[in-house]
Amino acid sequence: MSTPSTILLTDLLSLSPLELQAKLNGIYEHSPWVAESAFPDETVVQSLKSLQDVFRVMKKAVGGASLDRKITLLKEHPDLCKRAAVDMEGLTASSREEQAKAKLGQLTEEEYSFFTKTNDEYRSKFGFPFILAVRNATKQTVLQAIKARVKNTYEREFAASLAQVHKIAWMRLIAMIDLPESNRGFLTCHVLDTAGGCPAANMRIELYRLNDGRPTFIQSYVTNEDGRLCGGPALKGNDFQVGTYQWIFYVGDYFSSTNVDTSGCPFLNEVPIQFGIDDPEAHYHVPLLVSPYGYSTYRGS
Amino acid sequence: MSTPSTILLTDLLSLSPLELQAKLNGIYEHSPWVAESAFPDETVVQSLKSLQDVFRVMKKAVGGASLDRKITLLKEHPDLCKRAAVDMEGLTASSREEQAKAKLGQLTEEEYSFFTKTNDEYRSKFGFPFILAVRNATKQTVLQAIKARVKNTYEREFAASLAQVHKIAWMRLIAMIDLPESNRGFLTCHVLDTAGGCPAANMRIELYRLNDGRPTFIQSYVTNEDGRLCGGPALKGNDFQVGTYQWIFYVGDYFSSTNVDTSGCPFLNEVPIQFGIDDPEAHYHVPLLVSPYGYSTYRGS
Amino acid sequence: MSTPSTILLTDLLSLSPLELQAKLNGIYEHSPWVAESAFPDETVVQSLKSLQDVFRVMKKAVGGASLDRKITLLKEHPDLCKRAAVDMEGLTASSREEQAKAKLGQLTEEEYSFFTKTNDEYRSKFGFPFILAVRNATKQTVLQAIKARVKNTYEREFAASLAQVHKIAWMRLIAMIDLPESNRGFLTCHVLDTAGGCPAANMRIELYRLNDGRPTFIQSYVTNEDGRLCGGPALKGNDFQVGTYQWIFYVGDYFSSTNVDTSGCPFLNEVPIQFGIDDPEAHYHVPLLVSPYGYSTYRGS
Amino acid sequence: MSTPSTILLTDLLSLSPLELQAKLNGIYEHSPWVAESAFPDETVVQSLKSLQDVFRVMKKAVGGASLDRKITLLKEHPDLCKRAAVDMEGLTASSREEQAKAKLGQLTEEEYSFFTKTNDEYRSKFGFPFILAVRNATKQTVLQAIKARVKNTYEREFAASLAQVHKIAWMRLIAMIDLPESNRGFLTCHVLDTAGGCPAANMRIELYRLNDGRPTFIQSYVTNEDGRLCGGPALKGNDFQVGTYQWIFYVGDYFSSTNVDTSGCPFLNEVPIQFGIDDPEAHYHVPLLVSPYGYSTYRGS
Repeated sequence: MSTPSTILLTDLLSLSPLELQAKLNGIYEHSPWVAESAFPDETVVQSLKSLQDVFRVMKKAVGGASLDRKITLLKEHPDLCKRAAVDMEGLTASSREEQAKAKLGQLTEEEYSFFTKTNDEYRSKFGFPFILAVRNATKQTVLQAIKARVKNTYEREFAASLAQVHKIAWMRLIAMIDLPESNRGFLTCHVLDTAGGCPAANMRIELYRLNDGRPTFIQSYVTNEDGRLCGGPALKGNDFQVGTYQWIFYVGDYFSSTNVDTSGCPFLNEVPIQFGIDDPEAHYHVPLLVSPYGYSTYRGS
Repeated sequence: MSTPSTILLTDLLSLSPLELQAKLNGIYEHSPWVAESAFPDETVVQSLKSLQDVFRVMKKAVGGASLDRKITLLKEHPDLCKRAAVDMEGLTASSREEQAKAKLGQLTEEEYSFFTKTNDEYRSKFGFPFILAVRNATKQTVLQAIKARVKNTYEREFAASLAQVHKIAWMRLIAMIDLPESNRGFLTCHVLDTAGGCPAANMRIELYRLNDGRPTFIQSYVTNEDGRLCGGPALKGNDFQVGTYQWIFYVGDYFSSTNVDTSGCPFLNEVPIQFGIDDPEAHYHVPLLVSPYGYSTYRGS
Repeated sequence: MSTPSTILLTDLLSLSPLELQAKLNGIYEHSPWVAESAFPDETVVQSLKSLQDVFRVMKKAVGGASLDRKITLLKEHPDLCKRAAVDMEGLTASSREEQAKAKLGQLTEEEYSFFTKTNDEYRSKFGFPFILAVRNATKQTVLQAIKARVKNTYEREFAASLAQVHKIAWMRLIAMIDLPESNRGFLTCHVLDTAGGCPAANMRIELYRLNDGRPTFIQSYVTNEDGRLCGGPALKGNDFQVGTYQWIFYVGDYFSSTNVDTSGCPFLNEVPIQFGIDDPEAHYHVPLLVSPYGYSTYRGS
Repeated sequence: MSTPSTILLTDLLSLSPLELQAKLNGIYEHSPWVAESAFPDETVVQSLKSLQDVFRVMKKAVGGASLDRKITLLKEHPDLCKRAAVDMEGLTASSREEQAKAKLGQLTEEEYSFFTKTNDEYRSKFGFPFILAVRNATKQTVLQAIKARVKNTYEREFAASLAQVHKIAWMRLIAMIDLPESNRGFLTCHVLDTAGGCPAANMRIELYRLNDGRPTFIQSYVTNEDGRLCGGPALKGNDFQVGTYQWIFYVGDYFSSTNVDTSGCPFLNEVPIQFGIDDPEAHYHVPLLVSPYGYSTYRGS
C-alpha cells in the first residue's frame, strides 16, 4: 500500500498548521481550501490523535462550507467517462491510478455507449460530474451505480456525491499515512452454535488475504471453549492492513463431532466469509452464528 | 458420479421383489437381510415412487429389526483404522473407494498413533467399530469425530452409529441409481435487503460447482424485482446433481446503486455461500438476507 | 381509522383533476400547490390505479419543485415545540390530532426545557422547524430524534425533513382514503427450522392486533408441512388494516415434539414478533427462522 | 421458588456422603440408587463446587448404570395420563405439583380420549411410561409431544425419555438448593445495528419478568457507545433467578434518530425478546442484531 509520499502519522501530527495544510492539500480533489480551513491553527493540530481525527476535521470543514463551495468541490472532480483510452490528461495522478484499477478501459462498445449517454444525462440533470470512489470497483460497479443514481432527486444525489468525495478523501489519506503499531486496530472472531446454544469449541478456522480475488493463506486457528480464537486477535499491529480477507470455517467437521446428524454431503461444510477492512485503526469483529442448516455473520464490536 | 452398476430408477422399480433384493443387497454393509425384509413382496415394490421411498423402506427395515441384529449390522462395518497402507483386504469395494477419498493414508505418525489408541478405546467401550460416512471427509474430520464420539454414552453413540450407517447407505443408493429428469429436484435463490425492507433487485449472482474445492463456473444471473432469479431455477433436470456448490452475490455493487454509504473497501462486497446438495430429488432454496454490514443464509423451502 | 372525510379510492380516482386537487390539497401542510402540480390533467388522473400511485405522483411533484419551494414547504409545518398546553391555535386539525397522540403534553419540566432549547438551536441552524411524523411517536421518540438530528449537516437534515413531510402526507392519505377489497394487501408467514434444515411443521401461531400496546386476539394458526399457515394469508381483504400486530410462535412446543433436548425452562418458548403494517396495499411476509437457541425475522416478499 | 426443604449450596456441599445421598435421594424419581452411586465417598463430595457439578455427577451415575437399571428408572415415573381428576395417589409430592401446573385437568373430552389412546399405544410400543418435564408445559405441549414421540424408534425414544428424566432432576435440584451470590450467573445484552455496521448507541431497553405470561417491570436501560448496557449486567447476584424474561428494545426510536427513513407505522418499533433462564449459575448473553426491517437474537456468550 505504501507510495513514495508516505508519512508516518506521528510525523504528520508534529507538523505546523501550514505544513499540514501543504501535506494534505490534495486529499480533496483540486480543493486545497479544505485542508486550509480544517487546520487553521496549533490548537486544532494538537488535538489530533488518529487518522480518524484528521479525517473527521477535514470532513467537518467540508460540511461547514457554503453550498456554492460544495458544488464547486463536486465539479472539480474528473469525469469518470473520459476514460484512459480517450483522455486522461485532465486527471490528477491519484485519480488516474484509481481509474486504472476500475478497468473502465475494458468496457464493450455497447457499455461505453450506455455509459456516455447516461453520463451526459447525469451531468445535465445535476450540473456536476458523476463521482464514484473506484479503487475497488469493476466496470459493473460503475455501470450499475450510474444507472441507479441518475434517477435520484437532486438532494439525494448531492448527498450521495459528497459521500463519494469523502470516501475518495479517506482512501487517499490511508494510502498516504503510515500508522504506528500502537494506532493499529485488530481482527477478532467468535463462533456460536445456535442449535446447541453454546460457543462452538474446537472449530478449525483459516484466514486468507484476497488480492484481486486470489487468496493468500495467512494462518489457521482453533476455537477455544468460549468459541473464540486461541491466542487472541487473528490480526493486529502491522499485520492488520486495509484490504479484503476471507475466513474459512470448518463447520461440517464441527457438527460431525457434536452428534448432529448431517448428511453425507452436508448442507454446510466449509463456510467462507469475505469481508473488507477499510479502517486501519478500528477493531473488526467478524463472528459466525451457525446451526447445521443456516448461518449469519455481521460486523460486531 | 456414475459407476458400472448404475441403474435407472424406473428400471429399478420395475424389478421383481427378488431382483430388487439382489440389486440392493450391498447397500447396507454385509447385511443383505435389510433389502430382504424391506422388499418382501410386490405390494411394497409397487408403492415405491422415488429414491427417498426406496431409502425410507430400507431404513424402516433396519429400525424394526431386533437390537441384536442392529448391533451385528454395526459390527459388520470395517474398522476405519485399518487404513489403506496397512490392510484394505477386508473391505468391500465400495468401502475401499470411500476410505481412499478420506485421505486417511496421509495421517502423520502422531495422528495415526492417536487414532489407533482412540480407536481401541472406542472398540472396548462400545463393542462395535467406529463408523463414519467418509465420502466427503478429510483426516481432520475423522480425527475430530472419533475424539468427540468416544466420550458419548452408549445409547447416544449407538444412535449416532446407526445414523452413520444410514448415511453410508444413502450415498451408495444415490451413486448406484440414475434419476429420470422428472424425479430431479431444483435449486432456487432469493435475495432480500433487510436494511431497505425490500427484495434486492438487479443484483448479480454467479453459481459455481466445487470439485475438491476447485470452482467451475456454471452461470451468472441477475435478480428480478422480487429478488429472485430471472429465468426460474438456477439448476434443474439433469443439471441438478448431488455435490458442493457456491453462489457469489455481488452485494457491494448492489448497495452502491441504492444510495447506501458503504466504505471504499466495503465490509461486504462479494459474498460467497457454499452449500451441499445431498438429495437429488429435493428442492433446495438457498437465499440471502443482506444488509450493508451483515447477512444470513439458510436452507429454505 | 375512518374519519368524516373518508372517500373510497375508486370514487377518488373518478374525480376530475380540479376536484382531485381540491380533495387532496391538505395532504401536504398548507401547500395546495403540491396537489395542483401533481394532478394537472385527465391523463395523469386516469393513469392512477392505487393509493401508492397517488402518493408517488404527489411525492414526485414535491421532488420536482424548486429549492425555494421545498424550503417553504418545510417552513409551513407547525413547530412541534408549541405543544398543546402552550399554543395549538396555529395548527391544522390534522396536525393537532397527531400531536395529541404523541403525548408531548406529558413532558417533565426538565424535558420541556431541553426540548425548547434544542428546538431553538435547531431552528437557528437550519432555518425551518423540526418536523417529525408523530402519529406513533412517544415523547421519548421526539426527544431522541431532535437530539440526534440537530447534529446533522444541513444537506442531511434537509433530506431527513423532506422524508418526514412525505411520511406525514402518506399517513394523511391512508387515513382519508378507503380501499376496496381488491386493492388490499395481505399478511403471510413461514417458519423454518434452521437446526433441522426443514420447514417447521405443526407449529402453533397466534396473531394479535396491538392498540396502544394492548393486544387483541385475532386468530390462531397451525403450520402445514411446508411451514406455512394452513388456510392461506393470516389477514386479507378488509381484515388487512394499517396498524401494529404481533405473532406468538409456540417454539418451545415445536422443539419438544422434534426430539430436541431443550431445558426445563427453555431458552426459547413463546416467541413474540411485533411488526407494523404501514401500506394497506402491500404484501407483508413476516417469517421466522428458528433454532432452539436463536431466531431471525424480517420483512420478506 | 423456595420450598420448605430448601438448602444452601454451601451447606449441601459440607454434608457427609451419606447425608448427601439422603438429601438428594428424591431427585431421580423413586431411585435413591442414583444419589448413592453418585456420591460414594468424601473425595467425590469434596470435588463439587457448583450446582452443575452436583448435577453432572448424578447424571453420570445414571449414564454408567446398566441398561436394565435405566429402563427401571424410566418405569418408576408416574403415568402422565393418570391426571389429577382421575388418580394422583401414586405420584410423589414433587410430581403432583409439576402436573398441576401443566393444567392437564383442562383437557377436553376429545383431547383426553386422544391422550389416553396415544398413551396406551406409547406404553405398548416402548414398555415404559411417557415422560415429559412438565413444569412449564401446557396441555398443548403435552399433546403435541406425545403425538410426535410415539412415532420414534425405540432407540431414539429411549434417549429422549432419559433426557426428560434428567431435565426433571435438574428442575428438582434448582428448586431445592439455594445459591450464594458468588455462585450466581448474570444477564448481559448487546445491540448491533447491522445496517449501519456499528453498535446501536443510546437505545432504550426495558426488562420484564414474566409470571404465567404476565410481565413485571424490572428496569430500563440505555445502551452506551458500544451498544452495551450502561451499568453492567442487567441482572446479577440474587436478582438473577431462573424464570422467563422479556426485553423490549425501542428500535423505532433508535432508527428515527439515525436518519433512517422508516415509515409512519414503522415495520419494527418495539421489539420484544422473550427468553428463559434455566441455569442460575450461568452467564446469559441475549443480544439483538437489528436493521430497520429485520433482526436476530440468540444465546450468546
